Parts: sequence; structure tokens; C-alpha cells
Amino acid sequence: MKQEFDVLFAHNEFKAEAFLDELRGKKPLFILTIATTETAKIAGISAAGKYPEFTDYTPPADAELLQLGKCKSISGVPVTPDGIPTPALITMSALRLADVPVLVCSGGLRVKPQIPFLEVGGNPGRDIRSGNAVDSVQEVIDRAVIAGENLAKAADYLVIGESIPGGTTTALGVLSAMGVHAEGKVSSSMPDNPHDLKMETVKTGLAAAGESFGSLANNALRAVTCVGDPMIPAFAGLVIGAAGQVPVLMAGGTQMTAVLAVVNALNPDVLCNVAIGTTRWVVADTLSDIRGIVKEVADVPVLAADLDFGGSRFAGLKAYEKGIVKEGVGAGGAAIAAMAATEGAVTKDMLLREIERNYVSLMGLK
Amino acid sequence: MKQEFDVLFAHNEFKAEAFLDELRGKKPLFILTIATTETAKIAGISAAGKYPEFTDYTPPADAELLQLGKCKSISGVPVTPDGIPTPALITMSALRLADVPVLVCSGGLRVKPQIPFLEVGGNPGRDIRSGNAVDSVQEVIDRAVIAGENLAKAADYLVIGESIPGGTTTALGVLSAMGVHAEGKVSSSMPDNPHDLKMETVKTGLAAAGESFGSLANNALRAVTCVGDPMIPAFAGLVIGAAGQVPVLMAGGTQMTAVLAVVNALNPDVLCNVAIGTTRWVVADTLSDIRGIVKEVADVPVLAADLDFGGSRFAGLKAYEKGIVKEGVGAGGAAIAAMAATEGAVTKDMLLREIERNYVSLMGLK
Repeated sequence: MKQEFDVLFAHNEFKAEAFLDELRGKKPLFILTIATTETAKIAGISAAGKYPEFTDYTPPADAELLQLGKCKSISGVPVTPDGIPTPALITMSALRLADVPVLVCSGGLRVKPQIPFLEVGGNPGRDIRSGNAVDSVQEVIDRAVIAGENLAKAADYLVIGESIPGGTTTALGVLSAMGVHAEGKVSSSMPDNPHDLKMETVKTGLAAAGESFGSLANNALRAVTCVGDPMIPAFAGLVIGAAGQVPVLMAGGTQMTAVLAVVNALNPDVLCNVAIGTTRWVVADTLSDIRGIVKEVADVPVLAADLDFGGSRFAGLKAYEKGIVKEGVGAGGAAIAAMAATEGAVTKDMLLREIERNYVSLMGLK
Repeated sequence: MKQEFDVLFAHNEFKAEAFLDELRGKKPLFILTIATTETAKIAGISAAGKYPEFTDYTPPADAELLQLGKCKSISGVPVTPDGIPTPALITMSALRLADVPVLVCSGGLRVKPQIPFLEVGGNPGRDIRSGNAVDSVQEVIDRAVIAGENLAKAADYLVIGESIPGGTTTALGVLSAMGVHAEGKVSSSMPDNPHDLKMETVKTGLAAAGESFGSLANNALRAVTCVGDPMIPAFAGLVIGAAGQVPVLMAGGTQMTAVLAVVNALNPDVLCNVAIGTTRWVVADTLSDIRGIVKEVADVPVLAADLDFGGSRFAGLKAYEKGIVKEGVGAGGAAIAAMAATEGAVTKDMLLREIERNYVSLMGLK
């Protein structure tokens, strides 16, 4: 893996390097696409919320943290069952260091954030085991395309992240429906990745929809409708709308490959302007395989922020080195954008200090 | 009145000229702030909708026209009772000629537009005769400030327009509550400006709220709550958030003075970055007095697009020369921005040709 600033070129190295070079000193706009799915409430599937019903609050709370520097929908910040803080802490710290503007887009939510957000006409997602998980996929994509087209005219490039608990399972759903071999390859916010539970959930959903592995290879919209989540169409529409004009860094882990599959199905021409930006924890993860899925879906470059919390004085942050959380809320992409926008003035060390400072203040620590 | 491009410096000429100079060749973002109020349904108060209940559809239809080039919530385009087309036709033509991006913000709507829009937590407005017209004024301002701050980082400057039928009456309400002598000075979309009906409506509202002329001179939020409309807090918040960083052209007629009064009450420091951009039809109107109100509220510059539809081959457009419609949907400000962004390459003649072309295609004419 080659490296510039504190960014790793994790896949398609030359293209990744060229992509990063294009972002140097440019002014990005960060968009956080948030949504909820009942799939997250299946026991054992997600760590994004201490109790299942908390998963409804995680996306709005993450969004509030980015825009306000604190949450309004919950007290404190979202944490895993073990008390490990949301990756929104990384995103917020990175974006503030580089003064990057933020816009929130709702794909469909049970709980609305107490901040301004872009509405694109989606509804909260149902449990994918129903085989009918997402409403209005085409309409949401159409509206998000319009938003992406217009926002791309206002910014040098877009960085788009997501927050949706349960999102790797729904990503596996869409990928499987479309015939991508992602079983055992999607990431997890938990150190023990429950691959079997995820695949079983997807299989139940596909069967309920009367579909099977690969049966929707040529129908991405129905794949999302049956076994996807409402973040995916909003995110995909934004990418399609924006990447016709400016570079788009898809900020996330293996979930990005499901979005990529939808973009590739609807408008493959824009992919020359697209890269995935994630964290070192995702690309180094031995229990998932982002490169393997990307190669099979559409071979875009993958960049990874070379974050390292090993030297942190806080157990809650050190835990990231044990493979807990790993990514989310566009943390990796936001870190990459902060480094590129400041032409390397923001380093991983500076970022960790800022994250620790915000962690202390938000958690009331000393 | 001095002039550059096809823009008139209608008030505070030197400041207006300097303001326009600052916009030359820069990349704006246009934000349309839409909302509805039951006040528009009072017989004889608004021409923005052929029947009172149509006024619920005018703002979403205007917003759709800007973003899609056609309406979805209604067939055709919004027209006055006499069939004169919405000023959104001017705005859309100007923004497309100069490739200006558009974002829609909802202050509170009975009918949601079928496009992406920024949600800032407001509700549709009640009839101001109730004395309790607008919900959550502080919260909406707070959220809109956040949106304005972030969008200002992505654009060189903002042009903010509005679409809310009945808006000059609610503007008169806020101005009167705050002790500004606006009686007989607010504009109208009708050639016969129903000043008496507007003032009577405002007086009924103030009495219902237990307030009187000037009693809320030091309480802008309550003035909006009692006798304003939901466009005002969203618009004011956007201005406050953005104008701390970049120029903001408030695109509209006399309604802008009510927004100006709220901004001036909450954060007068940002006004050095603010101008009003309207049309020649407003500044030439003998039945209203935008300069008089501006002087009393906060003496910002006023610019006017020197539009002239006298030479149009369409009666529906020629009618603008008779004082029908005059302004709305940020038409004047959008025209100014299109001229400034293209450094004068977009002229009023080119704009009229583009408006006629769009009028023909949207109305199915020949």
C-alpha cells in the first residue's frame, strides 16, 4: 500500500493516488445520509445502540453531533453496548479541523434530527425478513439525483457518508440479490462479525420476496426494495447526481459496495469520478473483505485514512484498535478530506488529539 | 438611479454598486424558502392562486418549477386569477442561463414539494387574525442559521428568495408589531393593492394577540409568532447564518423588509453583507414604497433587475408591465445574480427570450 499524507491507497493504488491528488487544497461539502431500518433491531445484528430501540436514535444523534458539536436527540453521544463512542466523533473532529461544511440528508427515519436536513421523500425501512423493506426507491433516487446535481455545482467535490444501524446486513441483502458474492465479506461494528446471522436474515428476506441469490442482478431498484435499506437509494442518487460533474468520495466501509452496485446499475458512466474512502480498520479487517466486493461490483479505487488510536489515553478510543466500530458516519472519508483540504496540515496525530479533546468534553471526562 | 449590466441601483446607490461589484463572476447558490399561511385564503388578499385553496400548491409548484423545469404538484404552472404566470418562470430562466444551483427550504407547508427540500422544523402558518400564526419561531431560526452557516462555506454568496402567498400581509403584520410605518407601503401581486384589507387584517391579529402597533418593537420573535408567517424565520435564519461569512442577496420585494427587521433585531452585525435584490416593477411601483420601509428598518442597499416585458409577444408576460405580479420566487435577485455571475453576458433581452421560450413550452403555446 502506497501512502500520501496519512492516507493509504488500499486498492487500485494508481487511481487512488490520482483521485487524492485531485482533492488537494479543494473545498469539499460533506453530506451525511441517515436512515433507519427495523433490521437493526434483530438481536445480535448491530452494535450501533445499546438496546435495539436505541438504533432509531443513533442516526439523528450522529447527525446532530456533526452539525452542532453535541447531540440533542439523546444525552451524551451514541455508544456501543460496551460504551465505545460513535465514529461521528472522528467525523466531527476532522470536519471541524478543516472547516468543511456539512449537510444532512434523510433517506427515511423513525426519529427526525433536531437540525436542518434534506428531505428526499423516503420512509423508515422495514425488517428485510419481510422481503419488502424499502418504499419509493425510484422516487427517492430521482430526488436525490436533483440534490446531488445542484450541490455539486456549489462545491469542488462531495464527501458522502452514512449512518444507519444494521446497514451491513442490508448491504449484504442488496449485493446478494444482485448476485455479488459478499457472504462473509461485509464488515461489522462488533469484533465478532455475525456473518451467519446476517446471511440467514438475507436469505429469509429473499425467500419472502420470492427472490434468490442473483435473481435481481438486472433489477437494482427491486433489490433495494426487497432487502435493502432507505439510506441506499438516497446515497446512490446523490452520487449519480454529483459525480457527473465533480469527484465524489463515498465515505464508508463495506456498505459502500451496495451503493456502488446500485450506481453501477443505473449510471456506470459516473464511476470514473468515484472512490471509496474508509478507515485503516476496515481495510485491515480480516473478518471482512472490502477489496474483494469492490472488485466484483465495480473496480473503483479505495482510500483509507491511516488512523491509529493505539496511543490514545482513553480505553474507549483504544478499543477501535481491537476492531470495534471500525467505521461509520463517513469517519474515514471525512479524515481523508480534512487531510486533503489542508494539504496535509491535518495529520492523524493532530486528528487524534482533537478527537480526544472532543471525547473528553462530550463524555464529561477529565 | 445608476445602472450596471441591466441592474438598477435603486437605493443606497454607492453601496448597491459596491455590492454588485463584489458578485461579479462569483458562483452563487440560490435558496428558495417556501411556506404557506392560511392568511392567503382571506378573500381578496392574494393573487397567487386562482382559488384560495390553490395557495397551498403555489409554493411547492414554484419550487418544482425551479428544480425540475416543470411542476409536479399541479399541471401547468401557477397563474393569477387572470392567467398571468408565476414569477418562478423568470427565476428558473435566469438560474438556468447562468447555471446557478438551487436548494429549496421549507419554512412550513400544507403541501410538500415533490423534490428534495431542506426541512428546518416549521409548521404551516395560521391566519394572522388569530393572533397566533407561527409555531416554533426560535427553533426554526436556530436550525436555519446552521444551514446558512454551512451553505455559506460551500458557495461564494447566497441569493435567497421566497414563495408564500399572502406574504405582504404577514410582512405588514411583523413590521407593524415592531413599530415600522409600513401601512400603505407593502407591495401586491395585484394591480389594485388592497392596503385597507391588509391593515384591517393586521389590526385584527394584533388585537387578538393583545398587542398593538409597535408593542413588539423589542420582540421580533413574538411579532413573527403573532402576526407573521413561517417563511420569515426560515429566511431570517439563513441570512443570519450565511451573512457572517459571505454576501447575501435577499431576493424579493417589500416582504424582504420584514425579514430584514427580524435579522436586524437578532444580529445587526451581519447586515453589512446584505442587500435586497428585486425587480424594476417593485421599485417603480407607485402603490408601495420599498425604499421608505428599508430606510426605517435598516438602511441596506436595494438593487433591481431592469426587466422589461413591454416588448413581449405574449399578453401573459406583457401584463407584468401593468403592475401585475411584479416580483416573487426571488425573480429579481435571480436575474441580478445571473447577470453578475456571467459578468453581463446574460442581458435583460436574452432573459426575456429565454422566459418566452420556457413560457411557450410550459403553457403548450405556439
